[in-house]
Amino acid sequence: MAPTVEGGDAALLPEFPRGPLDAYRARASFSWKELALFTEGEDMLRFKKTIFSALENDPLFARSPGADLSLDKYRELNFLRCKRIFEYDFLSVEDMFKSPLKVPALIQCLGMYDSSLAAKYLLHTLVFGSAVYSSGSERHLTYIQKIFSMEIFGCFALTELSHGSNTKAIRTTAHYDPATKEFIIHSPDFEAAKFWVGNMGKTATHAVVFAKLHVPGDQCHGLHPFIVQIRDPKTLLPMPGVMVGDMGKKLGQNGLDNGFAMFHKVRVPRQSLLNRMGDVTPEGTYVSPFKDVRQRFGVSLGGLSSGRVSILSLAVVNLKLAIAIALRFSATRRQFGPTQEEEIAVLEYPMQQCRLLPYLAAAYALDHFSKSLFLDLVELQRGHASGDRSARQAELGREIHALASAGKPLASWTAQQGIQECREACGGHGYLAMNRLGVLRDDNDPNCTYEGDNNVLLQQTSNYLLGLLAHRVQDGACFRSPLKSVDFLDAYPSILDQKFEVSSVADCLDSAVALAAYKWLVCYLLQETYQKLNQEKRSGSSDFEARNNCQVSHGRPLALAFLELTVVQRFHEHVHQPCVPPSLRAVLGRLSALYALWSLSRHAALLYRAERRRGCPGRRDRSS
Amino acid sequence: MAPTVEGGDAALLPEFPRGPLDAYRARASFSWKELALFTEGEDMLRFKKTIFSALENDPLFARSPGADLSLDKYRELNFLRCKRIFEYDFLSVEDMFKSPLKVPALIQCLGMYDSSLAAKYLLHTLVFGSAVYSSGSERHLTYIQKIFSMEIFGCFALTELSHGSNTKAIRTTAHYDPATKEFIIHSPDFEAAKFWVGNMGKTATHAVVFAKLHVPGDQCHGLHPFIVQIRDPKTLLPMPGVMVGDMGKKLGQNGLDNGFAMFHKVRVPRQSLLNRMGDVTPEGTYVSPFKDVRQRFGVSLGGLSSGRVSILSLAVVNLKLAIAIALRFSATRRQFGPTQEEEIAVLEYPMQQCRLLPYLAAAYALDHFSKSLFLDLVELQRGHASGDRSARQAELGREIHALASAGKPLASWTAQQGIQECREACGGHGYLAMNRLGVLRDDNDPNCTYEGDNNVLLQQTSNYLLGLLAHRVQDGACFRSPLKSVDFLDAYPSILDQKFEVSSVADCLDSAVALAAYKWLVCYLLQETYQKLNQEKRSGSSDFEARNNCQVSHGRPLALAFLELTVVQRFHEHVHQPCVPPSLRAVLGRLSALYALWSLSRHAALLYRAERRRGCPGRRDRSS
Repeated sequence: MAPTVEGGDAALLPEFPRGPLDAYRARASFSWKELALFTEGEDMLRFKKTIFSALENDPLFARSPGADLSLDKYRELNFLRCKRIFEYDFLSVEDMFKSPLKVPALIQCLGMYDSSLAAKYLLHTLVFGSAVYSSGSERHLTYIQKIFSMEIFGCFALTELSHGSNTKAIRTTAHYDPATKEFIIHSPDFEAAKFWVGNMGKTATHAVVFAKLHVPGDQCHGLHPFIVQIRDPKTLLPMPGVMVGDMGKKLGQNGLDNGFAMFHKVRVPRQSLLNRMGDVTPEGTYVSPFKDVRQRFGVSLGGLSSGRVSILSLAVVNLKLAIAIALRFSATRRQFGPTQEEEIAVLEYPMQQCRLLPYLAAAYALDHFSKSLFLDLVELQRGHASGDRSARQAELGREIHALASAGKPLASWTAQQGIQECREACGGHGYLAMNRLGVLRDDNDPNCTYEGDNNVLLQQTSNYLLGLLAHRVQDGACFRSPLKSVDFLDAYPSILDQKFEVSSVADCLDSAVALAAYKWLVCYLLQETYQKLNQEKRSGSSDFEARNNCQVSHGRPLALAFLELTVVQRFHEHVHQPCVPPSLRAVLGRLSALYALWSLSRHAALLYRAERRRGCPGRRDRSS
Repeated sequence: MAPTVEGGDAALLPEFPRGPLDAYRARASFSWKELALFTEGEDMLRFKKTIFSALENDPLFARSPGADLSLDKYRELNFLRCKRIFEYDFLSVEDMFKSPLKVPALIQCLGMYDSSLAAKYLLHTLVFGSAVYSSGSERHLTYIQKIFSMEIFGCFALTELSHGSNTKAIRTTAHYDPATKEFIIHSPDFEAAKFWVGNMGKTATHAVVFAKLHVPGDQCHGLHPFIVQIRDPKTLLPMPGVMVGDMGKKLGQNGLDNGFAMFHKVRVPRQSLLNRMGDVTPEGTYVSPFKDVRQRFGVSLGGLSSGRVSILSLAVVNLKLAIAIALRFSATRRQFGPTQEEEIAVLEYPMQQCRLLPYLAAAYALDHFSKSLFLDLVELQRGHASGDRSARQAELGREIHALASAGKPLASWTAQQGIQECREACGGHGYLAMNRLGVLRDDNDPNCTYEGDNNVLLQQTSNYLLGLLAHRVQDGACFRSPLKSVDFLDAYPSILDQKFEVSSVADCLDSAVALAAYKWLVCYLLQETYQKLNQEKRSGSSDFEARNNCQVSHGRPLALAFLELTVVQRFHEHVHQPCVPPSLRAVLGRLSALYALWSLSRHAALLYRAERRRGCPGRRDRSS
């Protein structure tokens, strides 16, 4: 039984102020307070309220919506706000371990206030800080304390001007000089300048710089992370040999100072190497617990999953905000009506409902997915921290990598399209800056690009699935993964034989129906992609060509459908738990079915085509 | 035979500067100069070159891409630039009549430089000026000269805070006072404030204000346009009784000052009524050449088609700019490759091609459509000016209204989606303000909303088609329209019996194949929509409900498919003219086929479903 908020807890979830939305709110078939409690839990609601109350009461966080803030002023304000967030110390390390979901919740609250603030905080702590913590060793612990006191301010410098997606082509070098026991960090030319680095533009004092490690008389050992001081913390002037600057105005997130840096033979102590994956002895010998360069590289970039999961949750925040704005507007804006005298709320139009309500359902489904994936990630990181080198731990890493690599694209695109739809659905009012939809869209946009371009990332997920099928076909292995997201594929031959015999619209309102269709679709796409890939290879294409030729028509829809299925599955299970309050079951079930059917409907052409090709005639037409 | 530009005309189309695009340019299968000449014609190329050269050489038009300009500074600059455009006097009235396409060409050139400038110029001349010219009479000619000398600066005030789409619900009043021979313009409350009016925020001295006309002891005669002075031209201070202001920051087009105004019993002379549709005698009697209020209202808003056609052409400009930026980037950006040593241009990836090339084709097809529709509009306006009240003229007005009402949505959405795809396809670099994709997206965005929300407008087109079918079913009338865009529907029963027997991908590379499929699709959708509408009505829905219940699933796809068909048809005919230079036929044919197939493919689910429902089994599967 969920706790209630009646009586003493009114302060936690106070009534909304009276206004034009009252009429709609009175018509709700459920208690919004009960839903909030079920979705968040009381402890989390309190945590969020603490954060929002602090921001509401602090003049540093006051702002005028749609204000015309200069770039410099905005960046300065955002830095001061970021610093203040540390001072508030909303989340202790103990709390973080006890309630790990409070980490994304804090980031989401900051994102609700301003994406630039969330990004600045996240980049310093969870990206820079985590990189130092997870790639470094005991000798780097001194940095951690300075990070949390903001004595130093950090950034994560991987991408270069000419290389982002293809990290293996990154060209910054780190040569070890045994004479002085230093590394020499160097950018060979401007195309190898570090680029797009968040926090680097104006404020970072330190950077985790990825560079190719060379020791004397030896081959290159590949990319390694180094902690490099780039500015004097007192004056913010660049350190000798470092050319660092701000990249200027962006489409959004202008509170965040993205920067570039070139290193001209910058000498850093040997201890600057974050040495968990590999180290250099004072004499200049390279040593590593990992034998294989590829494996080392994989582990050193493993932290990217955590970035993608954070982005996923920030995309969900943007979608939530936009859909709330658009639905509230639609419930109060009246235009046309059955007679000239009587106008109706635009929310009453089927067109407006079709445009907006699926995104409301998507916000719920993706929000749940983002939380559950974060908890999976925590499990992975705990295993990592405790030195777990089991096969399961490795499998878990691969599975989470596959889920995050398609989850970030799905969430960021859904948010991008949803915000655009909300903007248009609010007509001219949606185009006014003070109504925030533009900022949400612009701030969400880079979610489609950073930590891996969406289209490029999807290939990681389709490759994961194709690898499992190859393993099954060639070695008779089972489809099994620690989180069980691929287990259903084990039955793919029988799933592909299934027919759908749904005869009424009412039956489709159970998300189990869409789930079954999704399973069929993913099995079908996986098999087709596998066959197409092999056919490409047989006809003489290299692996590289074959993959490229399959991605548009096969790999991409496979990865997206698989992830949608996973989101639908997890949300379906969530809303059908026995602990769901009876009064919420109907509305949650409808949200689940709506998201599932809406997502599935975008594959309708594929379903029809598959039916023709494979002679699967049982699927009845469900549309109107 | 098209003229050539070799030799003496090198100055008109000079070679591109040498650079990283040379390799791709050298591989072209056609001469870009020949294509430019065929697409534009030599006279137009010269005209555009004159404009661009003037802007390039005038320091007032110098700018830093991605600069952080304050709102006030940007609005001031944009006003000064607009004034300078008048001083350049690029287009004389004689030229305008001789080569009407130079009007949209001028607007497009300004739009290529900056959407805010194009909008500001367009609103003053073609919207405010045209309204005065076409709704006024001889007594208003004095304004026209002042418009072109910028002695006065104008805006068009129709929309109110609470009503945009539903113009009939507009509530500003104009009561005639025979004692002083004045109209009293009045805003009853803030919800009736004029809102979103471009140029009104800071700079307009005069407004065409739409208000409900009342004469003493008589009923309301509906909306009429009045020319009202809102500011002193010397000081720009508001006139007595006028509360006018700027709406603040928008998502884009921030060089344009959108404003609001409330009128507190503002008295204007009787002659301020733009009296072509109706007039008031000095004594206060209402007189009109139109008997019917609806007809009068229709004619007085007829000018909206011209606004929509202008928006269509500006959306095409945005798409052209974005696709050029993204394709050039993709041809020079290298990432990954068949080996670690060799990276290939991202344009070589099938994924990048599938993302971008359809938008290149769309830019060509829609550009042609926008020009041809503009010429149709010129024909309509000439008939209007010469007092043509024939049935053909009325039919032409309705047909152009239907084409513009779906053409604006199609073009603005294609541009919106295309620019977003270009932004993402350029990765992080696409997110940098100086690379302009953000500005293009933000400036294009209102094209989806103003002069009619896209989704609302599409209903105009579907209603037009449904009305023709009803006329055919009920009265046995033929499908015939002056521009012949609906004539094919006359054969709808036999078209619906047709089967598609295309057996190879190669066959589909002729846009005639997609055209035939489109004709079938439009006939199918029209019939289904008609049946669904009648079924709704038979089951007791009011007209209002029935239309709303049909729009999402039927009316909307019907309107879009009809317009896509028209665009494909016109471009198909254009590129298959005998005058097309032989060396361009292949590339133009491919562009035509690509746009047609890509557009059609978005209706694939509908085609499959229709096939199942109607037993039209001949359509073979064309996708790989």
